[in-house]
Amino acid sequence: MKGEIRTDLALEMREQFTEDDVEVRGVALTEDFCEDGKMRITRVEILDEHGAKVMKKPIGTYITVEAAKLFSGEEAQRRKVSEEVGRQLEFLCGKKPLRQVLVTGLGNREVTPDSLGPLVTDQLFVTRHLLKEYGEGFLNEQLDKGKDEAEIALSAVAPGVMGQTGMEAAEIIKGIVKHIHPDLVLVVDALAARSVERLNTTVQLTDTGICPGAGVGNNRQSLNKESIGCPVIAIGVPTVVDAVTIVRDSMEGMLKEQGYNKKEIELFLRGVEAMRKMNTMFVTPKSIDEEIHQMSRTISEAINYCFFDL
Amino acid sequence: MKGEIRTDLALEMREQFTEDDVEVRGVALTEDFCEDGKMRITRVEILDEHGAKVMKKPIGTYITVEAAKLFSGEEAQRRKVSEEVGRQLEFLCGKKPLRQVLVTGLGNREVTPDSLGPLVTDQLFVTRHLLKEYGEGFLNEQLDKGKDEAEIALSAVAPGVMGQTGMEAAEIIKGIVKHIHPDLVLVVDALAARSVERLNTTVQLTDTGICPGAGVGNNRQSLNKESIGCPVIAIGVPTVVDAVTIVRDSMEGMLKEQGYNKKEIELFLRGVEAMRKMNTMFVTPKSIDEEIHQMSRTISEAINYCFFDL
Amino acid sequence: MKGEIRTDLALEMREQFTEDDVEVRGVALTEDFCEDGKMRITRVEILDEHGAKVMKKPIGTYITVEAAKLFSGEEAQRRKVSEEVGRQLEFLCGKKPLRQVLVTGLGNREVTPDSLGPLVTDQLFVTRHLLKEYGEGFLNEQLDKGKDEAEIALSAVAPGVMGQTGMEAAEIIKGIVKHIHPDLVLVVDALAARSVERLNTTVQLTDTGICPGAGVGNNRQSLNKESIGCPVIAIGVPTVVDAVTIVRDSMEGMLKEQGYNKKEIELFLRGVEAMRKMNTMFVTPKSIDEEIHQMSRTISEAINYCFFDL
Amino acid sequence: MKGEIRTDLALEMREQFTEDDVEVRGVALTEDFCEDGKMRITRVEILDEHGAKVMKKPIGTYITVEAAKLFSGEEAQRRKVSEEVGRQLEFLCGKKPLRQVLVTGLGNREVTPDSLGPLVTDQLFVTRHLLKEYGEGFLNEQLDKGKDEAEIALSAVAPGVMGQTGMEAAEIIKGIVKHIHPDLVLVVDALAARSVERLNTTVQLTDTGICPGAGVGNNRQSLNKESIGCPVIAIGVPTVVDAVTIVRDSMEGMLKEQGYNKKEIELFLRGVEAMRKMNTMFVTPKSIDEEIHQMSRTISEAINYCFFDL
Repeated sequence: MKGEIRTDLALEMREQFTEDDVEVRGVALTEDFCEDGKMRITRVEILDEHGAKVMKKPIGTYITVEAAKLFSGEEAQRRKVSEEVGRQLEFLCGKKPLRQVLVTGLGNREVTPDSLGPLVTDQLFVTRHLLKEYGEGFLNEQLDKGKDEAEIALSAVAPGVMGQTGMEAAEIIKGIVKHIHPDLVLVVDALAARSVERLNTTVQLTDTGICPGAGVGNNRQSLNKESIGCPVIAIGVPTVVDAVTIVRDSMEGMLKEQGYNKKEIELFLRGVEAMRKMNTMFVTPKSIDEEIHQMSRTISEAINYCFFDL
Repeated sequence: MKGEIRTDLALEMREQFTEDDVEVRGVALTEDFCEDGKMRITRVEILDEHGAKVMKKPIGTYITVEAAKLFSGEEAQRRKVSEEVGRQLEFLCGKKPLRQVLVTGLGNREVTPDSLGPLVTDQLFVTRHLLKEYGEGFLNEQLDKGKDEAEIALSAVAPGVMGQTGMEAAEIIKGIVKHIHPDLVLVVDALAARSVERLNTTVQLTDTGICPGAGVGNNRQSLNKESIGCPVIAIGVPTVVDAVTIVRDSMEGMLKEQGYNKKEIELFLRGVEAMRKMNTMFVTPKSIDEEIHQMSRTISEAINYCFFDL
Repeated sequence: MKGEIRTDLALEMREQFTEDDVEVRGVALTEDFCEDGKMRITRVEILDEHGAKVMKKPIGTYITVEAAKLFSGEEAQRRKVSEEVGRQLEFLCGKKPLRQVLVTGLGNREVTPDSLGPLVTDQLFVTRHLLKEYGEGFLNEQLDKGKDEAEIALSAVAPGVMGQTGMEAAEIIKGIVKHIHPDLVLVVDALAARSVERLNTTVQLTDTGICPGAGVGNNRQSLNKESIGCPVIAIGVPTVVDAVTIVRDSMEGMLKEQGYNKKEIELFLRGVEAMRKMNTMFVTPKSIDEEIHQMSRTISEAINYCFFDL
Repeated sequence: MKGEIRTDLALEMREQFTEDDVEVRGVALTEDFCEDGKMRITRVEILDEHGAKVMKKPIGTYITVEAAKLFSGEEAQRRKVSEEVGRQLEFLCGKKPLRQVLVTGLGNREVTPDSLGPLVTDQLFVTRHLLKEYGEGFLNEQLDKGKDEAEIALSAVAPGVMGQTGMEAAEIIKGIVKHIHPDLVLVVDALAARSVERLNTTVQLTDTGICPGAGVGNNRQSLNKESIGCPVIAIGVPTVVDAVTIVRDSMEGMLKEQGYNKKEIELFLRGVEAMRKMNTMFVTPKSIDEEIHQMSRTISEAINYCFFDL
């Protein structure tokens, strides 16, 4: 709905309720810190329909890795984030050994904050064609691993956006999945956050796939186990804030200070012209080029680490 | 200064005063319409130091071509804008025939709304090396023109931004100018507007060159006749709004409605935390990729039209 | 087989026999000239299995448009080629009205002479999502056409190459075709020619689809009606010559001059070391960047002209 | 001269004489092996005018690092090459401490084998603006170095090629040098080799700068101490072989086998038509996209290692 706060981060949805209720029924929240407190790992579990309705997100697990301080420091520090994201991805993949994984990088390569997905696919260790050509065992030999280690056939595609292809990313991916039958689809996408502080410093992993409607692009079809026929894990990084959200949040803050109550604020905001104009706009940092490179590197390292111990 | 409204458009500076004073001393404003009112051409002339101080822009002529309706229609309509911008550019170039023109495309190719300048230089009809190699008369022959037509040696460079090169664009351009001695430097750059409606629908041409500080990038040195030693014309297109401006404008509107006066509003806004966080952020349309291609094409057509009747 | 002359152009295959036989059984050849002889249109029809074996290409129609002189001249001249290619494409499409067309741009965007396909898809008038969103009639209205004109839902995808995705382009395309069910797949690809003169001046259209093995990339699976389940038209432009072909051709010429016969030459060439090293190399013009842009523009104009009269 | 063997590698020039003379007067040659013989370092010193005339290269030192085997293996192996190139660069820089270095990446970003220079500049640790903004000592603090370590202000620019800018790269660089006064200009460029085996496996470093005429581009002005006014070190990687060279070399080999002598071969080759057509063509590997990324990474690591111990 127009004028609503939009965020792709389950964590930020959960934070909205902190004032009113300590506990949201159907939603469990745990948090962990590591690297001297520089990295925070939060797990939001949406447990039932009630939780899903309140959170406006499907039932499932949402892991958030926040590490602003590790990204501004040295290269070795940033690698810590790659490894942690890799470990969380391993956790979500579960224990059943995987044989074939398809990574899809959603988004528009031509719009800097939306190019995360395509940039990640560019940097992956793609192996499916190698195993097809040189046979089983080839990878283990190349990577100096034992003969009996499981080898993963990884493929990667950046399907482009609807304005470029005339097709929804979901349509292209469904077609490919029907043809190559992966055990797992991993979707990488740029997300919209509510808070500018989270931009390019936060990674969300979830086993619920991708829902329509947020970020720069406008995916309309879901990408999840139901729609695609195989498990879908999504890795996302917030790279933009919706302009509506920025305007709304700042106005709301001001009205609260002036003593208005929630209902009055809501009424007021509906009438504000400025917010209508903002609906097709997003907010992103001026240094988005460097940040997107750093984040795409981090996510691709995490994937290579998870599947190939690279 | 932080928190101030920032716009690179002289027209928007002028509009700030419309409520208070019908006339701003030292500033002349004229407007024209063409294409059935679909194109508006405004000329702001800053005539003296007083005008310059009020407008926070140097003395000189600022021409704005606004044509939102022509950009959303057919290709033939868009070409009308190219031609009008070409004619305005011709006017600013003056009557003295030009022999050598250097076009510089400022901005960061890696950040979509800041890539206007580099994209324009990619599409120009570069001729300097041809005249050097094949001699005078070569161009006129190629373009089926009379022998005695003036031929312009056009060169073009996209110097990159300071974070990439370690140098200010102005330093690189000054160096090149000292070496090749053009009669005119034409600077193309993405600008910041105050109003989201003006993004990618407006072109500003000025004979004052470029001042530090606006847009996505952070040029700090001026590019003008004084600093460079030859006339400088700047062509700019607003592609972003500063996030601070968006937040400030929407709050200000709200406070005005509530009956606060200018001074009270100013005081209030200074205290707002949200605006501080916005200082390194910009707002741009989700369809910036298509819009930037359309605008870069328009500007390059205008330049090719102005100098070569192409 | 290593060391063999490789060309993707049916016309060049046919030319190999000109010395020996005036007529090749199972192969019909016709030619036409237009634009004052500056454009040559050749039609090679492979009529039966014998023709297919001799020509090493499947049964079908191969149309070649050669127009070196039109590419070096003015823009208006180049447009003549776009229109002629568009008309030939119309002819190959047949009379049955099309409702949905999928264009696939094969090749590697990162290797200049192999980037033709992706560059073409970038410049198409993609309509499928518009018809889906705004309903039938929308295009005719936009394009000022009659209500009852057929509207084509065009989609476009550049699937990347196997080294990037781990998948054959054919696998990705098959998957998409199964999902969106087009009436026609149009494949655009960079080809290998035998003669350097044909590079970037020649367009081949064929209703036989794409065979494995030539060009810069190494597609191994066919893309044709049998493999994909819907008609496939291929449009190709030779942008490279295999290095083996260059070396072999020049040596062969020399040996012929020295009076050796065909058999002796063959024996001799098999022993030449230089040719082995050439197997992973290609030859391309130094100005490939400009030529590939010109050709991708020409092909995309032809497609837009054929399907939308643009 | 047309038809001549063209190579930018001093080592390959020297190899031409191995059959005739064990020693070439005015040219000294030494070689070293490391990494179990997987890396060969050759130093060619052109000592006087006679050597320069025979070698067709200016007086100076030419260091070649050949490491084909290290590039095909693991990442850690490739890093060995980066470090060795970094050490050789350090040697050429001499003992006088440097304060300001300008790196220029020559070549055309749009032509894959010519994009080495621009890709290298993209990956450098650019520091000049940081030292200007944050003052002396800033880098040492960032890099955890002692207070008294020399800090280098590194700037980097990719000036583009003449067809894009209308200016010679040398003109742009001279202009910038006049303006910012570096102690050293480092030029990175893609080279032409004679042997396909050397492509993308060899690095040449020289203190003589860049001479006109080889590679994909066509630089016509020298870049050296005389022309620019400050020391110039060039780092080059052969990424192409001239098509003329390929054809000539293979023919020459064949004619030698047939018993012709040098003079006869020369006469013969002058008459060969095929070689004329090859003059604007180059030969490069099909996997040039991956190789150019590997080499650009290696060179940028070497530069970062040499100047910042990164």
